[in-house]
Amino acid sequence: MLKRRTAFVTFAIVLVSALVNAQSVMPVPAQITKLSGSLVIDSSFAVSVSAGGDKNVSSAVQRFLQRLAKLTGIFSMKQTLSGETLSTLNVVCKEKSRAIPSAAEDESYTLEVGTRMAVLNAQTRFGVLRGLETFLQLVELGGNGFHVPCMTIQDQPRFAWRGLLIDACRHWMPVEVIKRNLDGMAMVKMNVLHWHLSEDQGFRVESKKFPKLHELGSDGNYYSQEQIKDVVAYAAERGIRVVPEFDMPGHTTSWFVGHPELASAPGPYEIERKWGVFDPAMDPTKETTYRFLDTFIGEMAKLFPDEYFHIGGDEVNGKQWSASAEIILFRGKNNLIDNHALQAYFNRRLLAILKKHGKKMIGWDEIFHSDLPKDIVVQSWRGQKSLAEGAKQGFQGILSHGYYLDHIKSAAFHYAVDPIDTTIANLSEGEQKKILGGEACMWAEYVSLENIDSRIWPRTAAIAERLWSLSATMNVDDMYRRLEVASRQLELVGLTHRSSYTQMLERLAGSNSIEPLKALADVVEPVKNYERGRTRQYTQLTPLNRLVDAVRPESDAAREFAAMSDDNKRELLRLWAGNHALLLPIIRQSPLLQEIEPLSKNLSDVAEIGLRLLQKNRQPFSEQEKSRLKDVLDKAATSVGALQLMVVPTIKRMFEAAQKGRE
Amino acid sequence: MLKRRTAFVTFAIVLVSALVNAQSVMPVPAQITKLSGSLVIDSSFAVSVSAGGDKNVSSAVQRFLQRLAKLTGIFSMKQTLSGETLSTLNVVCKEKSRAIPSAAEDESYTLEVGTRMAVLNAQTRFGVLRGLETFLQLVELGGNGFHVPCMTIQDQPRFAWRGLLIDACRHWMPVEVIKRNLDGMAMVKMNVLHWHLSEDQGFRVESKKFPKLHELGSDGNYYSQEQIKDVVAYAAERGIRVVPEFDMPGHTTSWFVGHPELASAPGPYEIERKWGVFDPAMDPTKETTYRFLDTFIGEMAKLFPDEYFHIGGDEVNGKQWSASAEIILFRGKNNLIDNHALQAYFNRRLLAILKKHGKKMIGWDEIFHSDLPKDIVVQSWRGQKSLAEGAKQGFQGILSHGYYLDHIKSAAFHYAVDPIDTTIANLSEGEQKKILGGEACMWAEYVSLENIDSRIWPRTAAIAERLWSLSATMNVDDMYRRLEVASRQLELVGLTHRSSYTQMLERLAGSNSIEPLKALADVVEPVKNYERGRTRQYTQLTPLNRLVDAVRPESDAAREFAAMSDDNKRELLRLWAGNHALLLPIIRQSPLLQEIEPLSKNLSDVAEIGLRLLQKNRQPFSEQEKSRLKDVLDKAATSVGALQLMVVPTIKRMFEAAQKGRE
Repeated sequence: MLKRRTAFVTFAIVLVSALVNAQSVMPVPAQITKLSGSLVIDSSFAVSVSAGGDKNVSSAVQRFLQRLAKLTGIFSMKQTLSGETLSTLNVVCKEKSRAIPSAAEDESYTLEVGTRMAVLNAQTRFGVLRGLETFLQLVELGGNGFHVPCMTIQDQPRFAWRGLLIDACRHWMPVEVIKRNLDGMAMVKMNVLHWHLSEDQGFRVESKKFPKLHELGSDGNYYSQEQIKDVVAYAAERGIRVVPEFDMPGHTTSWFVGHPELASAPGPYEIERKWGVFDPAMDPTKETTYRFLDTFIGEMAKLFPDEYFHIGGDEVNGKQWSASAEIILFRGKNNLIDNHALQAYFNRRLLAILKKHGKKMIGWDEIFHSDLPKDIVVQSWRGQKSLAEGAKQGFQGILSHGYYLDHIKSAAFHYAVDPIDTTIANLSEGEQKKILGGEACMWAEYVSLENIDSRIWPRTAAIAERLWSLSATMNVDDMYRRLEVASRQLELVGLTHRSSYTQMLERLAGSNSIEPLKALADVVEPVKNYERGRTRQYTQLTPLNRLVDAVRPESDAAREFAAMSDDNKRELLRLWAGNHALLLPIIRQSPLLQEIEPLSKNLSDVAEIGLRLLQKNRQPFSEQEKSRLKDVLDKAATSVGALQLMVVPTIKRMFEAAQKGRE
Repeated sequence: MLKRRTAFVTFAIVLVSALVNAQSVMPVPAQITKLSGSLVIDSSFAVSVSAGGDKNVSSAVQRFLQRLAKLTGIFSMKQTLSGETLSTLNVVCKEKSRAIPSAAEDESYTLEVGTRMAVLNAQTRFGVLRGLETFLQLVELGGNGFHVPCMTIQDQPRFAWRGLLIDACRHWMPVEVIKRNLDGMAMVKMNVLHWHLSEDQGFRVESKKFPKLHELGSDGNYYSQEQIKDVVAYAAERGIRVVPEFDMPGHTTSWFVGHPELASAPGPYEIERKWGVFDPAMDPTKETTYRFLDTFIGEMAKLFPDEYFHIGGDEVNGKQWSASAEIILFRGKNNLIDNHALQAYFNRRLLAILKKHGKKMIGWDEIFHSDLPKDIVVQSWRGQKSLAEGAKQGFQGILSHGYYLDHIKSAAFHYAVDPIDTTIANLSEGEQKKILGGEACMWAEYVSLENIDSRIWPRTAAIAERLWSLSATMNVDDMYRRLEVASRQLELVGLTHRSSYTQMLERLAGSNSIEPLKALADVVEPVKNYERGRTRQYTQLTPLNRLVDAVRPESDAAREFAAMSDDNKRELLRLWAGNHALLLPIIRQSPLLQEIEPLSKNLSDVAEIGLRLLQKNRQPFSEQEKSRLKDVLDKAATSVGALQLMVVPTIKRMFEAAQKGRE
């Protein structure tokens, strides 16, 4: 086998950006007052804690010190026994907090950093946690070494519900994936893990009452009850609630593999392998269904201590119901005019069961029905209008529309989505209060345990900021500047969004150097919204090991290219123009890369055009040549291997500007 | 603060190396017979196990499948219930093995890979483990996708003792550091973790009998007994023995903080913070010392199930003994002519205690004494000559001289060191059998938990190969080719030697791009042997966050530069010539980088010289210019910030060749 080794020689363009705000905290605190001087962080740094003996605060400080050690490379910093030595950071927590956070904790804090010491003051442990994250993000290197600039911060969240949904069903996500994402959430002050635990494609929790659920519904990939408890405790330590979702009555095929008697049509059932909306739904007319759910929810209610229990409720297509004579008869007898009414009946029954087990209900838009109690929460995938309508009727809601991470949109896109959008609906202050916050959603059709981090991070940090910071915090350039800092730090807390990129490219390149592949990968993005599913047939068993799975959701390189000077553009264009010749032999050796050969060629082709457009004293293009170049650009704008070449729009704009100008 | 952003434009030189052996297994198996065709690895890949119900084999196969999934991105591969479906890999283990490996396990295996299935045959679970690692390393991407080329392998180790010493005392190494290194060891078929657990600078194990040992001797950084059990079990699952070292009677300052009565001079004692050989030593004349050790070793013997117990025994300077009238008196009474004889007395007493608790003794060179029993093992830091002398007297031994990772030598250097060196000593076959193997040693004066992986890996893989493969396996170029593949895979099993490099450079560069810093870091190496300690005063509290701590022990870039064509050299030299201008503003912002400003300048200066030497039709240098260039090269050859510029020798050779040629 011919082995190619590519030695990359790198030349640098140094861009000196405008003077920027040195402070990189994300989400931006509510109020910062800068002072002169800074607090030095060296090996004598020590933290004292006044928390009335709350051990959770001490362990939070221990984790903080480990993080600070990673940020500075100084591993001898300590938590002092109170009064033992002079401390550099004094953490004061006024009240002893619950071990398990509720949905309405006081997360406010103040942080005062002086030249000799800093004081973090909070009413609760949750405020302490948020303030410690802020402190870590303030650490800088410069002047006299590591330090935090002197300032006073007063901070609290805008919304109380700042969540991330992780779908552990469509693809299996082991405990370590959940834990490292909890660490990422804590870093950006998110406080709800919405854990999507049952789906057509998998039932992921051990049930001791109904073991066939996980034994037959999960391919062996489920969380044991011990693991669930461990994750809930891990989250609680970080001030994060865990809201479990058991989607009902649809999205339930995997339940029916072991329990076909719950379904509205006879079995047998198999775990669904394809993606989409499927017919199987629980039979809402049988009392045995509710007896089963009473026992099951009773078991899960003990396992998940949060006051909310998510019942899903989305995308019931009603086909099994409409095909059953018995169910139609039941509807008639009970004056349920359509399947929506039948689902509302199911939800009312479910609500009673939840109440019995001490839980409040949360579900997707579809559960919304005016006769439900006002303490339910509606999670809106439909949008702010739907959310506002609920609020006007007095229902609480959270927004997920616009925060779907699997749609592979830019951080800027998500950043612009506000749960309270005054251009969509005018809400009174009281109505606004019904809107509790939002949740980023990581649906898992096209993510595996190795690339899920890169789909969640760093973009979710922008959503976290939207939900924590003041609504007026909306400078996109500054968001991107801070997002890059946050991205580095997220990797330090254990996320793998950056390392997995390299590892997946290395796998694709075999024993070759990854540089030419990376040059291409850096300027492409996966296709958006639901487009990927249209390009070919995927199932749960389809490997996610192609270039589209490795690349980042958002091309920083393409965004930066658009803003560069012509000289800098020229350097990059030269690289890209020559890249196809380097990449082609690597593509030829890797069956997984063969599909992107036209993509690689497109990049070099459009780069050639870009170079010609930037050529000084260029002869005008002939009409024929113009038409040919336009064809090349149009061709390069179409997706290849579910990937889009993100530098094409900029080169197109250069081409169009040239048309308007000289030619 | 001025923030600089460096956008790097990369140009590539593609080097097509000679046709190489595609197979990249490290260590090289004893015998490989290649066949035509290959075994495809896709989502239908399944493993069956015949192991007489040995659950440890099934869990080894589960871990194997997770690793295979990471290598391929295919996450649906399974272990089949026997007879359930046709398997692709059939694992056959003939006998049920001990849960805890002994020092003489059969680790042999055969692996036959055909186009339809592969069979791994081994007598024991340990052979299965080694064979599974081989299989993973055979996986390639090409042609029809992921596959393993058809072949037959018959393999077994050359030496039975293939160890890695980790010093968890001088700097603290948490459990996760130990675990990920165990995974790395398993990958390269190493089978002994030598865990250095007590030192002047720290006592790292919880003792329930003598809690003051860990409470006062560890700064709170110790392994609980639960953690020890967990690590021992983790190692055993991977076929790795855990040999604990409690260094006695010297290197014991940290014991004396809580137990000054054990020392040969009155206390009080404090944990030692400096590096070196210190005076404190146990009092070998008091019966109370032996009563203490009897209880302590009894406790530890239960915690560490391995048949060997390492008592250290090195570097007792005897000063405390010679300063004590009582000890001198004791020596006289007992006819112990010198302190060496006194230590031998101590060791005999210790040996009796070890025997009582069912342990065999292992210790450093110094314990060697002809009246010790023949089942002890002497670990030689002195060299093959010392080892051979022991073997001639019938003592077992292992080599560590030449395998000191903290000396920061090249993989090639370690690779050339053979425990049985026929140029040093001529041993009979029977004497050769006394030499059990060797151990790489990671002494921790200059490593922290964040860079220890980069000091151990990938170089230790070369030592592992020396200890496993045939002595005739010694092609250095091929070793380096395979080492690079192994390095990538080691990162996939969880080691951080590559990711920490980036993270530490990012810390040094602050918010700037790391590229110019990386260009320099790629071509430097830390100073060798004990030189670093001579450059400044270090203590245990000195942060290890400078460039010397971030860079790799061995510069691949410099080694590759030496072998490049002039054209490729020119490209790199051009990069380096311009690098100082890019790096200087970053250095100016980072107090931790200030020391390397001359180093950065040296790189650009020597690169300029290199470029001039490669200039076509160059005018000969004047004598004055020659002398100036020689001065620049000599200056660049001296270390800066404990770093050596590794491209200087190549450029010097170019300069000297030019002298001999035209000028």
